Amino acid sequence: MKQIESIKEFGGWLNRYQHESTSCQCTMTFSVYLPPKAATEKVPAVYWLSGLTCTDDNVRTKAGAQRYAAELGLALIMPDTSPRGDDIPDVPDRYDLGKGAGFYVNATQAPWSTHYHMYDYVVSELPALIEANLPVLPGVKSITGHSMGGHGALICALKESGAYRSASAFAPISHPSISPWGEGCFGTYLGDDRQAWHTYDATELVKAGCDLIPLLIDQGTDDEFLAEQLYPQDLQAAYAARGGDLTLRMQDGYDHSYHFIASFIGDHLAYHAKALGGDHQ
Amino acid sequence: MKQIESIKEFGGWLNRYQHESTSCQCTMTFSVYLPPKAATEKVPAVYWLSGLTCTDDNVRTKAGAQRYAAELGLALIMPDTSPRGDDIPDVPDRYDLGKGAGFYVNATQAPWSTHYHMYDYVVSELPALIEANLPVLPGVKSITGHSMGGHGALICALKESGAYRSASAFAPISHPSISPWGEGCFGTYLGDDRQAWHTYDATELVKAGCDLIPLLIDQGTDDEFLAEQLYPQDLQAAYAARGGDLTLRMQDGYDHSYHFIASFIGDHLAYHAKALGGDHQ
Repeated sequence: MKQIESIKEFGGWLNRYQHESTSCQCTMTFSVYLPPKAATEKVPAVYWLSGLTCTDDNVRTKAGAQRYAAELGLALIMPDTSPRGDDIPDVPDRYDLGKGAGFYVNATQAPWSTHYHMYDYVVSELPALIEANLPVLPGVKSITGHSMGGHGALICALKESGAYRSASAFAPISHPSISPWGEGCFGTYLGDDRQAWHTYDATELVKAGCDLIPLLIDQGTDDEFLAEQLYPQDLQAAYAARGGDLTLRMQDGYDHSYHFIASFIGDHLAYHAKALGGDHQ
Repeated sequence: MKQIESIKEFGGWLNRYQHESTSCQCTMTFSVYLPPKAATEKVPAVYWLSGLTCTDDNVRTKAGAQRYAAELGLALIMPDTSPRGDDIPDVPDRYDLGKGAGFYVNATQAPWSTHYHMYDYVVSELPALIEANLPVLPGVKSITGHSMGGHGALICALKESGAYRSASAFAPISHPSISPWGEGCFGTYLGDDRQAWHTYDATELVKAGCDLIPLLIDQGTDDEFLAEQLYPQDLQAAYAARGGDLTLRMQDGYDHSYHFIASFIGDHLAYHAKALGGDHQ
């Protein structure tokens, strides 16, 4: 991997890297914030998965997360949301399909199946790359994200039992098999078989009996996508039916924007820091 | 004035307004962050002046200032950087002249002199409008800004003696009469007479004997514009020659970006909160 940018922030470094991805068969870009503590020792990592239309840049610019990461001694890992490049299949007039909308699945349908392997990228390739090259503690990681990336964080944590010390989400697409965004992407990337969709759907994974990890979810009550796209109550019900530990905080008056994320990212990073603390404090 | 947007953040409200400006003879847009405290009482205000190419949106999205403003009980007032609209003179191929580059002066040269009155707008029209319509304490205000907006904050505080309780700046254009950015705008908006330029130049105002206000300035040592455009050492020398109180913090390794601003905006808002506290605490 090649470092292409480095910006000092809160005493640490906000770096950007590029590498040739074997999962996605293209050049991928990601950002990492290394807190001041990482100058002298390895630190735990929190993976942030972004939402539709985003690159690695949105969260690093808008969320205000680096302040908390600096204070808590956490690395932030911020991948892109899809494969990129001129050769990558896309639907240019759709913001919710193709580039910027990888939906954190491994596509099985042509022409998407060659490059759209964001699930493998996020759970395997990227952590291996980062743990081999940066001062992060191998295997000591948590995951969170927003909207489509909240969905991504949930399914990564639910499918990879034990891989993440903690998981949380902001306004996640919690039941994508029944949301228009999810149906659009799953139908395109995974085909018509809804059983295949369910293997990437947090609510359906829980219903099917996956291992449960405690979850912290924040959701704005004035989120314009809440009623049609997000369905956190479905995931909440699925957890409740199995006696799982899910904290769904309905945040009065908040919307779907990064202003909502900024307001609560400190809570989430503190939550992850607590879970990540055992091995190194 | 008309409210055109309202987003909940950190328990307060990030609002956007439009109004017909008498100073600029056009429709102007600005943003205000009202902290939770403003729901029940009037609060002090900190004006933020943005840099070249910015609108009111950059700082509200990128600086992370709202968290601190919420904690400190400060309103943030975030104006645009120039008049706007199809009828406004501009130089479309220049980012550093015309729209987005008002330089916080009252232009005297045609065709700029009809609309480019950002100085009057910032020191008079906007505070009067805000104090008449929003829950801020009349006359209890401070000012800060970045780059061109740091220049703006400095000249507003130095020219309007007593109007601001405190003033600070991030990487300000501290001696615009000798910087390429300043020369380009001053020559265009104010004409060839350098004495006119000096009335909007912080270093020259101090040399000419203006009232001094204590200043806090942060400047990154790796700022790509430091050597050619900013000249904080000139302002520092002018203050020192008169025994003025100027704290210039050279921040090792920081650049000119909002990541630099985010790293130190908390210090600046705490500095202003202390100065603004006398009347209401």
